[in-house]
Amino acid sequence: MPAPNAGLIARKPDIVAALAAVLPADAIISDADETRAYECDALTAYRCAPLAVVLPRTTEEVAAAMRVCHDLGVPVIPRGAGTSLAGGALPTADSVVIGTMRLSAFLEIDTANRFIRVQSGITNLSVSAELEPEGFFYAPDPSSQLACTIAGNIGMNSGGAHCLKYGVTTNNLLGVRMVLANGEIVELGGAAFGGQGLDMLGLICGSEGQLGIVTEATLRILPRPQGARPMLIGFDSAETAGECVTRIIRSGVLPVAIEYMDDVCLRAVEDFAKAGYPDCPAMLIVEVEGSEAEITDQIERIRLIADDLHPVEFRSSRNEAESLAIWKGRKSAFGAMGRLGDYLCLDGTVPVSQLSFTLRRIGELSKEHGLKIANVFHAGDGNMHPLILFDANTPGDLERAEACGNDILRLCVDVGGCLTGEHGVGIEKRDLMGSQYGADDMAIQMEIKDAFDPQWLLNPAKVFPLETSRPHRDRAAAGH
Amino acid sequence: MPAPNAGLIARKPDIVAALAAVLPADAIISDADETRAYECDALTAYRCAPLAVVLPRTTEEVAAAMRVCHDLGVPVIPRGAGTSLAGGALPTADSVVIGTMRLSAFLEIDTANRFIRVQSGITNLSVSAELEPEGFFYAPDPSSQLACTIAGNIGMNSGGAHCLKYGVTTNNLLGVRMVLANGEIVELGGAAFGGQGLDMLGLICGSEGQLGIVTEATLRILPRPQGARPMLIGFDSAETAGECVTRIIRSGVLPVAIEYMDDVCLRAVEDFAKAGYPDCPAMLIVEVEGSEAEITDQIERIRLIADDLHPVEFRSSRNEAESLAIWKGRKSAFGAMGRLGDYLCLDGTVPVSQLSFTLRRIGELSKEHGLKIANVFHAGDGNMHPLILFDANTPGDLERAEACGNDILRLCVDVGGCLTGEHGVGIEKRDLMGSQYGADDMAIQMEIKDAFDPQWLLNPAKVFPLETSRPHRDRAAAGH
Repeated sequence: MPAPNAGLIARKPDIVAALAAVLPADAIISDADETRAYECDALTAYRCAPLAVVLPRTTEEVAAAMRVCHDLGVPVIPRGAGTSLAGGALPTADSVVIGTMRLSAFLEIDTANRFIRVQSGITNLSVSAELEPEGFFYAPDPSSQLACTIAGNIGMNSGGAHCLKYGVTTNNLLGVRMVLANGEIVELGGAAFGGQGLDMLGLICGSEGQLGIVTEATLRILPRPQGARPMLIGFDSAETAGECVTRIIRSGVLPVAIEYMDDVCLRAVEDFAKAGYPDCPAMLIVEVEGSEAEITDQIERIRLIADDLHPVEFRSSRNEAESLAIWKGRKSAFGAMGRLGDYLCLDGTVPVSQLSFTLRRIGELSKEHGLKIANVFHAGDGNMHPLILFDANTPGDLERAEACGNDILRLCVDVGGCLTGEHGVGIEKRDLMGSQYGADDMAIQMEIKDAFDPQWLLNPAKVFPLETSRPHRDRAAAGH
Repeated sequence: MPAPNAGLIARKPDIVAALAAVLPADAIISDADETRAYECDALTAYRCAPLAVVLPRTTEEVAAAMRVCHDLGVPVIPRGAGTSLAGGALPTADSVVIGTMRLSAFLEIDTANRFIRVQSGITNLSVSAELEPEGFFYAPDPSSQLACTIAGNIGMNSGGAHCLKYGVTTNNLLGVRMVLANGEIVELGGAAFGGQGLDMLGLICGSEGQLGIVTEATLRILPRPQGARPMLIGFDSAETAGECVTRIIRSGVLPVAIEYMDDVCLRAVEDFAKAGYPDCPAMLIVEVEGSEAEITDQIERIRLIADDLHPVEFRSSRNEAESLAIWKGRKSAFGAMGRLGDYLCLDGTVPVSQLSFTLRRIGELSKEHGLKIANVFHAGDGNMHPLILFDANTPGDLERAEACGNDILRLCVDVGGCLTGEHGVGIEKRDLMGSQYGADDMAIQMEIKDAFDPQWLLNPAKVFPLETSRPHRDRAAAGH
């Protein structure tokens, strides 16, 4: 990491006073004991308390805080609920964290035009909860949906188990209100179909706090399907399970979700959640939805595809209780794995046709590095989440796990996939960006960053490799 | 329009020689008689022949041409098939047109991972034709699909009748290879799910040739549905037809297409194509697809919604011949309207819940301006295409039609819609951008343009209002 700016740290009282001059007193946290609560996100291996934390309640308060930081040259760390697994909300010692958690108002529900407008600090799950009486829902459903905010979902372009059919955040985001680095407030996109001029909404989605802070979001909402039903399909090898996913996708059936769990994970989950999962090397949960006729039709088509591959188990849920049990196991997977010890949760993607090969190769890498790896992930869109088990108390074990993780992510890129499906780059994958992008590709990305954040104050030391971004940051530090 | 650069025009021989030094002889057109073929696109009211036209066959030839223009400071007009209705490919007298029509190779079909990779000069319809033997198709289907290119589709973020269910170009574009203003070649996005760093693909899609020239595209492909069936629903008023669309969308049924035609259009089409359309004030074509069970289920749900509104006719296609006849009428609508005289084809969007109000208000504007207006459009996503009939031989009639068109587009914005659904801004709507965007919104768009095209050479005098963009262009002309 670049050294923090000692001059800024020394000027902490001035910075806090400048913030206090434009914000309510209870919106600022500067006591060292209290700022420590913001020293990390869910990538807890990295920690650093910020100078101060600001928790605004309105777009205008965010703008006021951003202007102060801009004028004083203070780095800003945008933060949702702090659930990032990639260190996306890790502070630097010379920075001010601007958290969105108090931006928690519902602003507008319009079912006729199928959108909801919310302040960005609303949690993901509460959006669908708010819509339930209307018979609608919001599709992206990250595992952390009870805690994570829409602001964080937009920053990381979050997905979830049910995104195979409905897409990830970028496919469900219609517009944002956003504060730029200099405190200007802009509106991008909107509820209506169409647009004009440059479409910057996609650029904002997944930009990991590099371009501004989203304070309001207009989200596409969908009518709840009439029904949904999951199936369990167990296989005697990872390769066959992977092949089944490829064949389902290719066939044209479009399930809502295809989730994959391997034996390590299945056993951990079974001990923990008693979901009634079979004991086999690889299992898929495939969920279909629609009217009863559509559900029956889709289950039959999937059964035919699976049968060709001789599953060791094929079970489709017969009632609501069975459906809940099937999903309860999957949703508790990360908690269950936590009971086995420490783990690194990776997030890479591969073409669906490469699932079998990639799973086999991950098995080999597990042996090469001498580390146990569990696989539980969104197989339908090739979004893998290998969990590398390690012991945080054994010196050098984290580093070995990270090295193994880097090998796996490079493997993803080598077979035609990406470094991240939904967790983002953060600090975790910053230095792997060069494995995916050439110099020209990186340069144009950094010029976009220059345009939005000429001082390079927003979420420093993330996303862009430090060496690659040095000329831009130096130019920014020199005032262009 | 800004005055063309007389210095460049005088240097035409040097410019052509510089191009000839890096390109095959048959890739350059500089004879004044031949360049005239490129003096306009489908907005034929505006014409201006360029200095020269370049028709490259490879990305590298595009890059070579771009480098020459960049080094000599020559404006570049990217051109697909020239079907833009907004003047998106209109040349300036001091410019070089770079056409993509010879970039016509299919590069890769991968049904397992559901993508096709093509050179960008491929026509839209030929992509689906190429995929037909595999049982797949490419969803966006603009009316001009026989002629228009994928490059143009990406430039304008084109839609089409069947985009209600599958989205427009931006929802079906996975990656591009693209040449920047300085001749650099970059790759953005790709076939795999996920990504890292800034997602610039959405920014490129719909950027109307302001940011670069796309030479290759990776497109999402979909398995052909088992079947599809259209319905005709006639109503005794525009308002009721609009209300029917709102209720269908709100109900959760998702047809592939909901098309609207009013009486002016119905009569013109009936004279021309004998599609068997009813004689009523407003008609919808609603198409559903899927398995036979799904089709039946959806038709029944739509019939119930329509029945509540007392349609004057409800007819669902009984066989392939009837289905073709229904679509033949709709697809010939623009040709049929052409037989009634000259028309301006508008392209604005409104929230679906505002369809009834907007149709009524357009009727009033028709009376106020004393101009007949026909309505035929993609109602399901609120993408309106009012056709304003006028007589090009009557002095002042075009101007009256344009004034009426501006009123209608402002109406779209006022009710919460957008200036364009799929035709783009081009020169047609350039000066209306201020009705949708504030100064800060426009500024950040122009900074993106600065980053991609520091000299402001690409597709000049379009998209951005001339007054608003003057400081950026002046700075560009002064070499920053």
